[in-house]
Amino acid sequence: MSRPVHVAVVGAGSADAATAGMAEEVGRLLARAGAVVVSGGLGGVMEAASRGAKSAGGTTVGILPGCERSEANAWVDVAVPTGLGEARNALVVRAADVLIAIRGEYGTLSEIALALKTGKPVVGLETWELSQRGVVATEIVRARTPPEAVERALELAGRSA
Amino acid sequence: MSRPVHVAVVGAGSADAATAGMAEEVGRLLARAGAVVVSGGLGGVMEAASRGAKSAGGTTVGILPGCERSEANAWVDVAVPTGLGEARNALVVRAADVLIAIRGEYGTLSEIALALKTGKPVVGLETWELSQRGVVATEIVRARTPPEAVERALELAGRSA
Amino acid sequence: MSRPVHVAVVGAGSADAATAGMAEEVGRLLARAGAVVVSGGLGGVMEAASRGAKSAGGTTVGILPGCERSEANAWVDVAVPTGLGEARNALVVRAADVLIAIRGEYGTLSEIALALKTGKPVVGLETWELSQRGVVATEIVRARTPPEAVERALELAGRSA
Amino acid sequence: MSRPVHVAVVGAGSADAATAGMAEEVGRLLARAGAVVVSGGLGGVMEAASRGAKSAGGTTVGILPGCERSEANAWVDVAVPTGLGEARNALVVRAADVLIAIRGEYGTLSEIALALKTGKPVVGLETWELSQRGVVATEIVRARTPPEAVERALELAGRSA
Repeated sequence: MSRPVHVAVVGAGSADAATAGMAEEVGRLLARAGAVVVSGGLGGVMEAASRGAKSAGGTTVGILPGCERSEANAWVDVAVPTGLGEARNALVVRAADVLIAIRGEYGTLSEIALALKTGKPVVGLETWELSQRGVVATEIVRARTPPEAVERALELAGRSA
Repeated sequence: MSRPVHVAVVGAGSADAATAGMAEEVGRLLARAGAVVVSGGLGGVMEAASRGAKSAGGTTVGILPGCERSEANAWVDVAVPTGLGEARNALVVRAADVLIAIRGEYGTLSEIALALKTGKPVVGLETWELSQRGVVATEIVRARTPPEAVERALELAGRSA
Repeated sequence: MSRPVHVAVVGAGSADAATAGMAEEVGRLLARAGAVVVSGGLGGVMEAASRGAKSAGGTTVGILPGCERSEANAWVDVAVPTGLGEARNALVVRAADVLIAIRGEYGTLSEIALALKTGKPVVGLETWELSQRGVVATEIVRARTPPEAVERALELAGRSA
Repeated sequence: MSRPVHVAVVGAGSADAATAGMAEEVGRLLARAGAVVVSGGLGGVMEAASRGAKSAGGTTVGILPGCERSEANAWVDVAVPTGLGEARNALVVRAADVLIAIRGEYGTLSEIALALKTGKPVVGLETWELSQRGVVATEIVRARTPPEAVERALELAGRSA
């Protein structure tokens, strides 16, 4: 199938300048590589990633928690109002081949967890670190920079396709 | 808001030539008018409407019942695999400003019902007729042809916006 | 499996005395027969059916559209707050072996449609009549009285099990 | 409202003897305290917690990922087949006032995350430890034994009611 890779960029709904800058660069690099950028469609990291993708002529999809397309940030091309509340996080994961998690709060953590539960790769940029009874979980692929995150995500999407 | 009107075209997952012909014409006319065509993303009426929309350069969104984007027919630009089964019908309705129902079976009837329940207008082309204790329900706006259906749907979307 | 039959009683969220009376009798007779009464958990027919079931010592389950158990009417034993809005109608259908629809509005119609779409039998008491291009749909099994509705529903649940 | 506290016991779908023992004790103590035990309805920790609750005469609810009540383990009183797949984890959280997480894998982590995202308290027994950029998250209330977990959960449910 020639359809493009879909990458979900997940992170908090409000973001400081540094976090937004990373998200915007991730979005731009993904679009430049021909990937569709999926997100939860709201503010913060979701908005910055979408803005970055549009700056490079990409396509952006926003999977929204509420019932109104108008909730979406201005850089979402296709807004899908699910009306499912936080349960929509599962749909963000389902819509993507791979996730890039940028820092993030508990909503982001739920998306990371649902992705790993269902076998989708997750690349992390300064995001959650997980351990249990002293054993560190290594499933999140760590990247240090936006270009590295995008490179790893595209590799992993290819490998899992 | 300058975002385009979203019209869900709903109908059965398999369609005879006459039904598919109506759906394709509806899709083409919607795209020509600048509307985004939303559907359940599978075969039959969904596929024909999407094909029609693409033939006129439109944008198509498919809200799928399963977990794989690859379920979508070949004319869906943006596939959203919900993993919700038939519960995804509620999301088809939420994604649209107005519905055009073309004939259809019980899945289509559920979409008509959910739209009317939540105050979204429905235009019907040879679709379900509803009554209760002898009283005919008149909420479905009847159209006799694809051009009439599209015209009425766009009017109603404007009015309900 | 010895687990009891689950019957969804569906109808409008507000009900006049005659409709509520039918729903209450349906609930009472179901409970007396050992069936679990499932509903959407709110008022009207849902509340009357639950009240009837409790008056006969039955068990009642309410599948709610919102996020709070406290939305449930006072006769719901087990309240399940889905947070899915009207998409919860699909879950009411999934929780039951058979539906009894009592009159009802468009929400009820969506439940009838989702049940028939997924092969679950529906018994109707003065509920929606459906036709398409002049052909009346006969899938809804018509009952004239609450006892007849309960009898037919339990028969159909046995047959479809 | 006099309705009982609902506590979700979350953990992996398969469990070694030690983990199952903890879950069974948690279920038993919750039931003895009059709480309803909510779970994902399947095996492992979910089954052990339900079995424990039933051994003390409690009520158990299972929120299932699939479409069939028969998926539920034998100690679930009320099985709710959602058909939502892993998105049902959000409904397990919504059905409860507080969570007790026992060890657990990524599905459990998603439930912890969704609870914390929506302000529901989480008590952890040897479960996930979370940190980000070197800062440990302290929102999960740590308990060392099943009795301590149950005691803390009931306190927190009271406080958050």
